[in-house]
Amino acid sequence: MPHSFKVKVYYEDTDAGGVVYYANYLRFMERARTEYLAELGVSVSELHDQGRFLVVAHVDISYRHPARLGENLEVTTEVEDAGIMKVALRQRVLKAGSVLVDALVTFACVDREGKPQRLPPVFSPTRVP
Amino acid sequence: MPHSFKVKVYYEDTDAGGVVYYANYLRFMERARTEYLAELGVSVSELHDQGRFLVVAHVDISYRHPARLGENLEVTTEVEDAGIMKVALRQRVLKAGSVLVDALVTFACVDREGKPQRLPPVFSPTRVP
Amino acid sequence: MPHSFKVKVYYEDTDAGGVVYYANYLRFMERARTEYLAELGVSVSELHDQGRFLVVAHVDISYRHPARLGENLEVTTEVEDAGIMKVALRQRVLKAGSVLVDALVTFACVDREGKPQRLPPVFSPTRVP
Amino acid sequence: MPHSFKVKVYYEDTDAGGVVYYANYLRFMERARTEYLAELGVSVSELHDQGRFLVVAHVDISYRHPARLGENLEVTTEVEDAGIMKVALRQRVLKAGSVLVDALVTFACVDREGKPQRLPPVFSPTRVP
Repeated sequence: MPHSFKVKVYYEDTDAGGVVYYANYLRFMERARTEYLAELGVSVSELHDQGRFLVVAHVDISYRHPARLGENLEVTTEVEDAGIMKVALRQRVLKAGSVLVDALVTFACVDREGKPQRLPPVFSPTRVP
Repeated sequence: MPHSFKVKVYYEDTDAGGVVYYANYLRFMERARTEYLAELGVSVSELHDQGRFLVVAHVDISYRHPARLGENLEVTTEVEDAGIMKVALRQRVLKAGSVLVDALVTFACVDREGKPQRLPPVFSPTRVP
Repeated sequence: MPHSFKVKVYYEDTDAGGVVYYANYLRFMERARTEYLAELGVSVSELHDQGRFLVVAHVDISYRHPARLGENLEVTTEVEDAGIMKVALRQRVLKAGSVLVDALVTFACVDREGKPQRLPPVFSPTRVP
Repeated sequence: MPHSFKVKVYYEDTDAGGVVYYANYLRFMERARTEYLAELGVSVSELHDQGRFLVVAHVDISYRHPARLGENLEVTTEVEDAGIMKVALRQRVLKAGSVLVDALVTFACVDREGKPQRLPPVFSPTRVP
């Protein structure tokens, strides 16, 4: 079962097209990732205070159906590929069980100078190098 | 007792100064207003679908202390002045009971052409014209 | 020569990691697309007023190097694949000629009900179906 | 003559009401302030690198008329009150010479610990304490 996170659509999330602005799904996904990591025992803000930053290296995102003002959405998160230096998460935005947006988000860990660091050892390695 | 709404600070809310970006408190307050109105029986998205929009006419906001990544905040909302055409809400952002940001937000209702409309009759009139 | 659009990084674009927030590159790219289309004679806001919306269907984006506060960036835009119903644009964010972010952004045209429409006939068809 | 800065309204700036989202005018104003300060010889990003931050202490903002997708706006900036520790700028958003939004934005300078610092000595003191 993937991790589940609830999001409600407010005016700030929408644009004049009457739908959620395409960049804002990445904000929803980052909120969901943060809570997913917290459940694994990884605090993004503690890492931050230690000078370690989880940075997104790649996103592949498909927009299938739009979300609209006032809708209650669910963001699901699960590991698709986990390595020592990179993890790829499958994140989906759903409305009433239907997938609106589907993304593969790959992130890594860097220090203040941007040098790659090992990820927190909470991800069972699968395949990402 | 004012209405209370919880907000957690994610990376999207912060800026390179390490604190919440000043415009983003207005986003927090709009989320809190929406939920406050929902508790009064006013659905912002139903109004929207009917072609009626709650628009902010004025904001007076004091930034006292910054909020930071990962912090759990509370946004309180209560009526300060209510009229037929305008309502002024006192909205505050608190951390552990201390006020970080204090705002008076005055809004009105307009139709698609921007013409003023009566507000939903859920606010006991006090003083705002 | 790809179309070139200038962007400067302000506080609003950054996050507490000291770099541009990952979703905000999509905002830069949308600004650049809008100006690119304007040069081709396509006004996004006129289409909007006619009830036609250019919607992003897919983004594949690689974040190679971060941008920081105060930096002057360039967003380049060029057609990678053009069809009747979909166009894929290659969009890159550069600093001093180096690629920071590289994306392939596929968009389509829909009406108010979300039904697919032909794109404005300014793109020479190449390969996208 | 106040300082003038041009802004064009993109989808990212708007909301489902079809107008610019109320918090986003603060983003436009920050861009304009940054360029206004640059003309006075104050680089916000250099200050940032030195650990000094211009922080907004207070905003009083009136929303008179909405701005819409594709519109070309002007943000004007001028000193209303200048002190050693605080400066109040009058910032207005105009369309074709008409004021849409009118704000008084008071800012101060702090160090990394949030302690007040003297402002850069480019503002002729007037009245703000």
